[in-house]
Amino acid sequence: MAATFAYGSSAYLVRCCSMRENIDMNNEQQLNSSIKVNGSFRNPVKVDSLSLTAEAASTLSQAGSVAENGQQRQNIPTKKQLVDPYRQGAIVEGGVVYRQNVVIRSYEVGPDKTATLESILNLFQETALNHVWMSGLLSDGFGATHGMMRNNLIWVVSRMQVQVDYYPIWGEVVEIDTWVGASGKNGMRRDWLIRSKATGLIFARATRHVKENFPYILRVNFLLIYSYLFTDLDFYLPNSTWVMMNRKTRCLSKIPEEVKDEIFPWFIEKQAIKEDAHEKIVKLEKEAKYIVSDLKPKRSDLDMNHHVNNVKYVRWMLEAIPDQVLESHQLSGITLEYRRECGSSDIVQSLCELEEDEGLHDIVKKDYDTSLLNGFTSEIVKGNGVLACLEERPMRYTHLLQAKGDKQYQEIVRGRTTWRRK
Amino acid sequence: MAATFAYGSSAYLVRCCSMRENIDMNNEQQLNSSIKVNGSFRNPVKVDSLSLTAEAASTLSQAGSVAENGQQRQNIPTKKQLVDPYRQGAIVEGGVVYRQNVVIRSYEVGPDKTATLESILNLFQETALNHVWMSGLLSDGFGATHGMMRNNLIWVVSRMQVQVDYYPIWGEVVEIDTWVGASGKNGMRRDWLIRSKATGLIFARATRHVKENFPYILRVNFLLIYSYLFTDLDFYLPNSTWVMMNRKTRCLSKIPEEVKDEIFPWFIEKQAIKEDAHEKIVKLEKEAKYIVSDLKPKRSDLDMNHHVNNVKYVRWMLEAIPDQVLESHQLSGITLEYRRECGSSDIVQSLCELEEDEGLHDIVKKDYDTSLLNGFTSEIVKGNGVLACLEERPMRYTHLLQAKGDKQYQEIVRGRTTWRRK
Repeated sequence: MAATFAYGSSAYLVRCCSMRENIDMNNEQQLNSSIKVNGSFRNPVKVDSLSLTAEAASTLSQAGSVAENGQQRQNIPTKKQLVDPYRQGAIVEGGVVYRQNVVIRSYEVGPDKTATLESILNLFQETALNHVWMSGLLSDGFGATHGMMRNNLIWVVSRMQVQVDYYPIWGEVVEIDTWVGASGKNGMRRDWLIRSKATGLIFARATRHVKENFPYILRVNFLLIYSYLFTDLDFYLPNSTWVMMNRKTRCLSKIPEEVKDEIFPWFIEKQAIKEDAHEKIVKLEKEAKYIVSDLKPKRSDLDMNHHVNNVKYVRWMLEAIPDQVLESHQLSGITLEYRRECGSSDIVQSLCELEEDEGLHDIVKKDYDTSLLNGFTSEIVKGNGVLACLEERPMRYTHLLQAKGDKQYQEIVRGRTTWRRK
Repeated sequence: MAATFAYGSSAYLVRCCSMRENIDMNNEQQLNSSIKVNGSFRNPVKVDSLSLTAEAASTLSQAGSVAENGQQRQNIPTKKQLVDPYRQGAIVEGGVVYRQNVVIRSYEVGPDKTATLESILNLFQETALNHVWMSGLLSDGFGATHGMMRNNLIWVVSRMQVQVDYYPIWGEVVEIDTWVGASGKNGMRRDWLIRSKATGLIFARATRHVKENFPYILRVNFLLIYSYLFTDLDFYLPNSTWVMMNRKTRCLSKIPEEVKDEIFPWFIEKQAIKEDAHEKIVKLEKEAKYIVSDLKPKRSDLDMNHHVNNVKYVRWMLEAIPDQVLESHQLSGITLEYRRECGSSDIVQSLCELEEDEGLHDIVKKDYDTSLLNGFTSEIVKGNGVLACLEERPMRYTHLLQAKGDKQYQEIVRGRTTWRRK
């Protein structure tokens, strides 16, 4: 389940041959950094719980108990847990769907007081991980199961589709459901639904779909691949949206029995969204109409693998959308296809171009031309028919993020965004 | 209380002469954008609650009820509320301190699995606003009280100090307390404490302190000033960390009786942190050792006032810190003094420089010189005395963010960061 459940991180997985050691190392490093200055405050403070503080700090800094403390602090369940009061999460619907109440926070909304797409993506990541958390399958790190760890397997994600019908607003309470399911023979998918807690109205839907065929690639050496919720790929993987692979051999792998036993009991047949998987996202050429160049990752954009965080990709994609579209339209959907990771030293170009609906355009043009010939405006145009339809219909943009290479640009992400009029 | 409670936003406050109208406008705009495409899904979906969805959507899109719906969706309390189960917040300690349980989310941590400073700042903002939310004083927007609205008053914040002793880790449950108090005659402060839910160990402390004297400026015309949690200032305001001002006349204002009546009952005498208010942050010169230039706000960095979000300032400041310091040290404290807002078209430079402790440096150098003269290494150096002390003592950096002007750079933020060895 793990990676459809959430995402795994190579930072931890790369060393999973001796994971126990690494858990300790990670925790030790982490705790050392916060413990070495042992609880002495530079400035005296007037706080009633100071004595408790000193006591707790002394417990925390006891030698040898660092890793244990880290685990205690995280308190990852070792068996299935049905309710988590702090996360406000519960396993529902036959014991497989994870549901969590979330209040939209003040810093998660944009200028119009509605949640940003980035916040929504973050909440998807959070709930997916909490699903694995509650399942008792989370071994360590960011989403791999115990079985995956034992098999040295990591997940690689390449495709994500999100549809937002209504944006939740600041202070609103929403309910997020997430679950996993089978897709074909070896595939998996994870879905999400966000709905209003008060009315049940569905605000947003998303899926990451798994395809079972990897026709082109059976071995991908020399490439650092890591998995992430909507991760970057270091390689080109046609027609595949999910991959499980061995982190050592870099061989793609079917899901081993051990992992199947862990995750299959969680599969259900339920789809939040019908994907546009068959609509290929074309690769934009360098002559794309809208181009923003010289985008550089900042240090704070890097995730725990020192790679660019996926939310940053979405930001970069949206940077290329013309201002007037952002003012008149609202993002209603996004599809992402990751092709290659973006490193900290990459210089990125964000391209986008409006998808012209040639068919509809032709009809209007023809109709309009006829009207001009006849000296009158045809009914279809005059009566706010096609024109209004053109005005109101959603717009679609095709996107490409690419990194400057020595000789040519290299694809990072292809994307598609859909926009409806405000 | 409001702004020490939280922050007010000029986007809403600038129009507070007819606030009711504006609330409606804002909500209308907001809801329209999500309602116009009336619940019809581009793709059919298999979701059991679809019927509920359609029904709720139809309720939502009824003409005339848009603003009301917005208010319903936010559900801001009109009187003091002691507990909020969704926020996991409660008013405690004599009915004035706000306490909230928070689980550190997966996307709030950095590569080392600990919460980033930015996440901590965001949580401060969130809990401050939830404090006002629970108080029943929140009128609309982001933190102003009803009395402030009636008096056309907005808060302006200029100084913030944060001290992090331990960083919470991914999945850890923390408890955040926040409260407000008096400072001098007309001043106010808001404090925060983050502690481990499990042990009570205090992880972080923060304050925004108010000084009551505004010696230099009594009137600030022509300047768009807005308030924010740790806001930007459009003007230079020496020796002042908090200001209340009339949004129309731009005159600074003492807290009017009406607002005092609202907020004074919430004041308590308790300090989370002893501020270094007397330690002036010097203005760095353009010869600073570390400079990162040509920083440009992205569209996604802009807040609801179309100004650069304060968290972005912190990111920019940290961009200038040398890599080796980030590797060997951990940020233990930060002080921010905002001077001027940063607009979307500004080109920003981030400067920083290590604060040399001349005194200590001289001692070591003298001691070392003496040793060389005498042909042996003195005890103080050899015995890991001063050298170890130098090695282990916290480092402090002075920061400056400035915007490129026509003739000269203009200060945006002065800052100080403190770093301890990992």
